[in-house]
Formats: sequence, C-alpha cells, structure tokens
Amino acid sequence: MRMYDIIDKKRLGGKLTKEEIAFFVDGYTGGSIPDYQASALLMAIAINGMDVEETTELTLLMAKSGDMLDLSEIKGVNVDKHSSGGVGDKTTLIIAPMVATLGIPVAKMSGRGLGHTGGTIDKLEAIPGFNTALSKETFFNNVNTIGVAVAGQTANLAPADKKLYALRDVTATVSSIPLIAASIMSKKLAAGADVIVLDVKAGSGAFMKTVDSARELARRMVDIGNNAGRKTFAVITDMNDPLGTAVGNALEVIEAVEALKGKGDEKLMEVVYTLASYMVFGAGKAASVEDARKMLEETITSGKALERFAQFVKAQGGDDAVVYDTSLFKLGSIVTDVPALEDGFVSGIRADEVGIASLILGAGREKKEDVIDPGVGIIVKKKTGDAVKKGETIATLYANDPAKVKAATERLYGAYTFSKSHVDAPKMIYDIVE
Amino acid sequence: MRMYDIIDKKRLGGKLTKEEIAFFVDGYTGGSIPDYQASALLMAIAINGMDVEETTELTLLMAKSGDMLDLSEIKGVNVDKHSSGGVGDKTTLIIAPMVATLGIPVAKMSGRGLGHTGGTIDKLEAIPGFNTALSKETFFNNVNTIGVAVAGQTANLAPADKKLYALRDVTATVSSIPLIAASIMSKKLAAGADVIVLDVKAGSGAFMKTVDSARELARRMVDIGNNAGRKTFAVITDMNDPLGTAVGNALEVIEAVEALKGKGDEKLMEVVYTLASYMVFGAGKAASVEDARKMLEETITSGKALERFAQFVKAQGGDDAVVYDTSLFKLGSIVTDVPALEDGFVSGIRADEVGIASLILGAGREKKEDVIDPGVGIIVKKKTGDAVKKGETIATLYANDPAKVKAATERLYGAYTFSKSHVDAPKMIYDIVE
Repeated sequence: MRMYDIIDKKRLGGKLTKEEIAFFVDGYTGGSIPDYQASALLMAIAINGMDVEETTELTLLMAKSGDMLDLSEIKGVNVDKHSSGGVGDKTTLIIAPMVATLGIPVAKMSGRGLGHTGGTIDKLEAIPGFNTALSKETFFNNVNTIGVAVAGQTANLAPADKKLYALRDVTATVSSIPLIAASIMSKKLAAGADVIVLDVKAGSGAFMKTVDSARELARRMVDIGNNAGRKTFAVITDMNDPLGTAVGNALEVIEAVEALKGKGDEKLMEVVYTLASYMVFGAGKAASVEDARKMLEETITSGKALERFAQFVKAQGGDDAVVYDTSLFKLGSIVTDVPALEDGFVSGIRADEVGIASLILGAGREKKEDVIDPGVGIIVKKKTGDAVKKGETIATLYANDPAKVKAATERLYGAYTFSKSHVDAPKMIYDIVE
Repeated sequence: MRMYDIIDKKRLGGKLTKEEIAFFVDGYTGGSIPDYQASALLMAIAINGMDVEETTELTLLMAKSGDMLDLSEIKGVNVDKHSSGGVGDKTTLIIAPMVATLGIPVAKMSGRGLGHTGGTIDKLEAIPGFNTALSKETFFNNVNTIGVAVAGQTANLAPADKKLYALRDVTATVSSIPLIAASIMSKKLAAGADVIVLDVKAGSGAFMKTVDSARELARRMVDIGNNAGRKTFAVITDMNDPLGTAVGNALEVIEAVEALKGKGDEKLMEVVYTLASYMVFGAGKAASVEDARKMLEETITSGKALERFAQFVKAQGGDDAVVYDTSLFKLGSIVTDVPALEDGFVSGIRADEVGIASLILGAGREKKEDVIDPGVGIIVKKKTGDAVKKGETIATLYANDPAKVKAATERLYGAYTFSKSHVDAPKMIYDIVE
C-alpha cells in the first residue's frame, strides 16, 4: 500500500477502505508518513468529504492511537456530556450533580480553556482549594461514592487527533465536517462512556455559525457514536448570546450554584434540562425524555443536587462553604457598569467577542502558558431581545487591573448591536439529533 | 498576507489574486512556506482548479523564479517546439534542419530522457563525437550560422517548477491540468522563444490518455502562452502506437536521417509536417499553414534539410559521415525478430510498454544515474491496423546483453493486442488548438 495511491483516490472523490485509513493514521502517527502527504490527504478530504463509514473508521483508529479508558470499575451506565465549546457555558457544573443524584455516574476528564471559550477545569479551580489532579484511585472512588469526579485530562487520549489537529490548524483544513466529527468523537470514544450526549452549539460564539452546519456536524457525530456502539444524542443549542449571564470563572461557578438553588437563568436552564434529560433517558433511568425532565426538576426543588455539588467540591479538596454562601468568592475588586448609549433593543450579541472581552480582563488564556485570574469576568445584564434605556447597565465588568477595563469595555460595546424596533430573543434549542 | 488564508480561499473554490500567487511562489521557492502548506494548496488547486488568469500568473511567476533567457543575439523569429513526451518521438531531429533551411533559427535547450520516454540529447549523443555541452558563444554562433543548435539544459530554468514538481510527485497532484500547463509553460516562457508550437500527445504512451484531456491541456497552455505575449499553437497528436518505427537512440537517428532523405514513415511525417507547418506559419515565413507545408516538402525533395542536418552534426563535433551512410552506426550485436504467435490484426500497441521494453534493453534510464547504451532498441514492424500471419516478425530487438532479450520480448508481447477482425489504424492528428 502506498500513501500516494490513497491521496490520489481521495483526490478523485473515491471512498477509502478501512485498511487505507489505518495505513494513513498509523503511518502518520508513527512518523513514516510525512506532513506534506498528510496535508494533501486532509485537503482532499476537506473538499471531497468522507462518508459515515469512512469517518467512523477514521474516528475509531484515532481513538485507538492512544489510551482507551476502561470505566468498568465504575458502577452504572457511564454517560458523557460534551459541548462543542461556547461562552458562558457552565452547564457541566449544574448537570453533573443533578444526574449524579439520579444515580448516573459522572466521571469527567476535562480540558482547560483556550481562546474565547472557558474550560470546566478552570471554572472549578476558582473554588478555593479545589484540586483536579486526582489519582486514578481517588477518581474512581469519588465517582463510586459521590457520583461525580472531574479530573484534568492526563490520559494519553487520541494522540493521532492531536497530531492531525495541529496540521489541520496550519493548512486550512479545520472546517471539514468529517474531520471535526472524527476529532471530537475520537476523544469521546477513547474516554470510555457508554452513552454520549453532545451539545452542538450554533451561532456567532460557536465554531458552527449556522444551525444547518451544526445539524450536519451533529448528524455525523451521532452516526459515528452509534456505529461505534455508543448510544449517542446531540442537542443543537444557541450560541449567539453567551449562555446564561456570567462569563468568567468564579462568576460562572456562582451562577451554577444559583441555578442549583432553583434561581437559574431561564434560557440557561432550558439548555441544562434538555441535555440532562437525554443523559438520564440515555442511561435508561427514565422511560421518556419528558419523565427524565420531571425527575431532574425534582433534584433542584428538593435541594439534593445542590447538596451533591457541595459533596463533590469537598471531595476534591474545595471549600464547600462557598456553595452555601457565594459571597465568599473573591471577585475582581474593580466593578464597572457598562451603560447603554441610547434607547432601543438589543438586536444581537457576539458571544465570541464577549468571551474575548472577558479574556482581556484576565479570565482566559491567549496562550497555553497564560495564568488565569479566577475572580474577573463579565455579568451580561441585557441580552438579545431586551429593551434598554440610555444609561441603563448592559453588562458589569469585574476586574483587578484598571488598565484592562477600557479595552474590555470597548470590546464589549463592539459585541453588542442595537435596534430601534423590537427583536425576538433567540430560541435556545434548535434541534435534537438521535 | 497569510498562507493559511490563501489555502482556505482555494479550498472554498475562490480565485487567487496575482499577489496571493506571488506570495505562494516566492515563499515556497524561498523556503518560508513549508511543504505541508504548499501541498495543501496544490491539492486544493488539483481539485478546485484555477482559471486561465490564475494559471497565467502562476506560470509567469514560476518562469521568473530563475533565469529568463535572452535570445536577442539570435537573428530572426525564435520558434520553440515542445513535445509533451512520447515513445519513438524523433520529430525534433527531422524538423530542426527543415525549418532552419527556411530561415527559422532553432536554438534548443533540451533534456535527457527518464522512464519510458527518450530525450533529444540522448538521441543526438548516439552520433559519434556529438557534443551537447556548448558554450553560450558557440550555441548562439551556431544558431546564427547554421540555423540549428541543441544544447543540454544548463540554465537555471524555472527552479520554482522543479521544487513544486517534486512535491506534486509525492502528493498525487501531478495530474492537474492547470498545474501541468504551468509547469510546462513556465520553462517555455523562461526559454525565451517568440513562437511556441506544442505537440500535445494523447493515448496509451502519453500522460494524457484521452484526446479530450489532451485538448483541455492544450487549450490551457495556448491561452497561457498567448496571454504571456508568445504566439502559441498546439497540435494534438496520437501516442497510442509508438511514433514511427524506431525506438532507441541510434535507431531513431537513423529513422530521422531516412526521413530527411524522403523515406520517412507516413504517419511520422504527418506529425512532422503538421508541427513544422505551424512553426513556419507562426514565424511569419508563410502566408498559410498549407503554403508552409509545401515549402517544407521542398526542403526534403531538394536535399537541403539533409544537408543542413549534416552541417549541424558537424558543427557540434559529430561525425557527419553517418548521415550519408547510416550503416556506420554501431547497433546492438544481438538482433532478435519477435514473431506473431497467431494470425490476425494488431488491435493496439501500448507505446509506454514498448518504451519500457526498450529501456530494459538499455536504451533508457530508470534512474538519473543510469548509463544509456545508444545502439540498442526496437524496430516496430507491425502497428495498429496491420494484418499479421503467425510467425511473421512484429518487431526486431537490438541488444548487447543476451540476458535482457527475454524480459524485453515478454514486455513487448504484453504491449501488443491482437484481434481476429480488421481494426482501423489510429488517426495521427486529432486537433489543432490556437
């Protein structure tokens, strides 16, 4: 078999066999196939596509290029929720204790944030004392006792994806549905869950700018997951506005805690309930998605989900007092209200720009080495569809460095567009793909 | 400007600007753009194409990446004939003295053969004493006095093409019409001729297997040439059967000399006259292609072309006695007739396979370092459409190494197909593109 022939076949739009895909993945990961041949094939795939069968093979081979986690030590059906990345997305913090309360173990390997999107690990580390560097024993033990554990990604998951992604990133082959799907799903398959619920975001703050492209990606990922023997669902959710109101690490934990107390933002909770319902239904804990939702609402009203969150925080070394008194969080000392400059309606918010404004304040990383300031960020007070009066606060900034407030404010103004006439608020759930 | 954006634009099927193409060609030739980005762009071009304007810019930039020859020291309109490569193609040896006789200077930089096609330089070096390593002065002086000079390619012509071709060769992006056209034409533009006549071959022995693909390539090259201010014509000729009867260096020189004596193979002469007519017409030496042809026929019947060939050979140090007595050529000492195995008709010959059979005998190079045996090769006695009787000779092999005869014979049998019913001989001239 020759890499040349494999490239040539895909250039002509042919379908690659399992053996050909294996030759490529193994050869590229192993170093016998050079970058310039891999990038030629990636471009041919980006333009001519791959069908579901090819993409499934590619995904499985990428998954198997590294550690395949064995979650058999965990009791129950393992369910993994994955979000394709957004601004203000604290759903994991809310959903994990909710579903754990219903007997669904959450054993999550999570990443740190880069660019305008935050990472779950960074958010949890805003809780004083919280430790995400767990030993394998502690990780499994916590899942089996409390039902939740979140660890920084330490396993060698899908190294082929890492190498391919780095090459795609410099050869303009990132935005290919089969390649994105294979990249995400290879890590999900390697992470070992039985049921996978995907939150595929669509809109200005997401990689997929339109609902159609998000649906196409969701369809492909669900097909791969199901073909690989994992029960997979995808929920297509809005990422035009930031999700909920808080953007920034401690601010988002506070919003999550408020949500667990039953005071969650309505749109945020719509996403939380939809995703969690599919997790509960997918795990076989409810007869229908509707039943699952009722059970989940009960975890909030009963206070059980909040209690479970406190246990989880404590088990990972965090100070659980903050859960009952969020004023214990040390927020940025410079609090600045950003006023509307005229009367009207918010006609749109570019979530990615809000994410960058928050990053400027110190809540995110531009480069991997950057250190995060957990107390800074933005509370978004006016969202798409809201009426505003001149001088009324559209957002509040929490900062520690006065020099950064001006740049963040300018960026934030750039994120908002206003209109004289009424604008509908965006729908939160666009579609379910199963 | 970023290479990433250029790749992305072409991935989406966009049209590259002159500045973007220059950024790529200069950056890749200069080493600031890595192979993996260049190969991604080449694949995007191979699949999504380039229009005539883009291809012309690419060609000009590739041409200007090295020496641009200045032929102003040569008197008259410089005409270059280029063949896209074939088996048994000795047309340059015949045409050069014919058109020189009519006052058209032939200043040819030519290459050596590789693989199944031979090179003009190798053929000329089969003449005892012939020297193709000419100084610039001798080269120009010979053209101005005799009208013909052929030198090995020593100038640094289109180094960007050399680098890009090496990358295309390992990334399955060779067979792209715009990239092939740019590769060929960049060297033609750098070589400095005012008029370019292209012999684009179509068939089993050519890179372009069909007349349609040859026509597409021809159209693109003629457009590039004309856009670059060179009068350009293309003749699409057959390369199913080998051209003429001889394949191998000395054998082909003998066939060329016989042609100059008026005893040329009819099909070979059809190609010779058509190409040469466009050279004469293109140079403005005849009012029409038909007139040009009559003038060219006269160069043969008068013996002037033969005489000119002898002068050319002598001027480059060759023994011109062989022109008048071709038995002076030292041919392979092992002469083997290959018989037909049954009665029937030749229904096809794969010219590339005949080329390889000749290469096996020692007439060509598999690797650049291989040394050629000028006396070996094949005389093709039966061609497509010919009736054959069992035992009748279809081809004669000239060899010096008995061990190679068997392999070459087998290869030759594999090149022939036979039929019980009559088959038409192929047309030689499929189309003219101007």
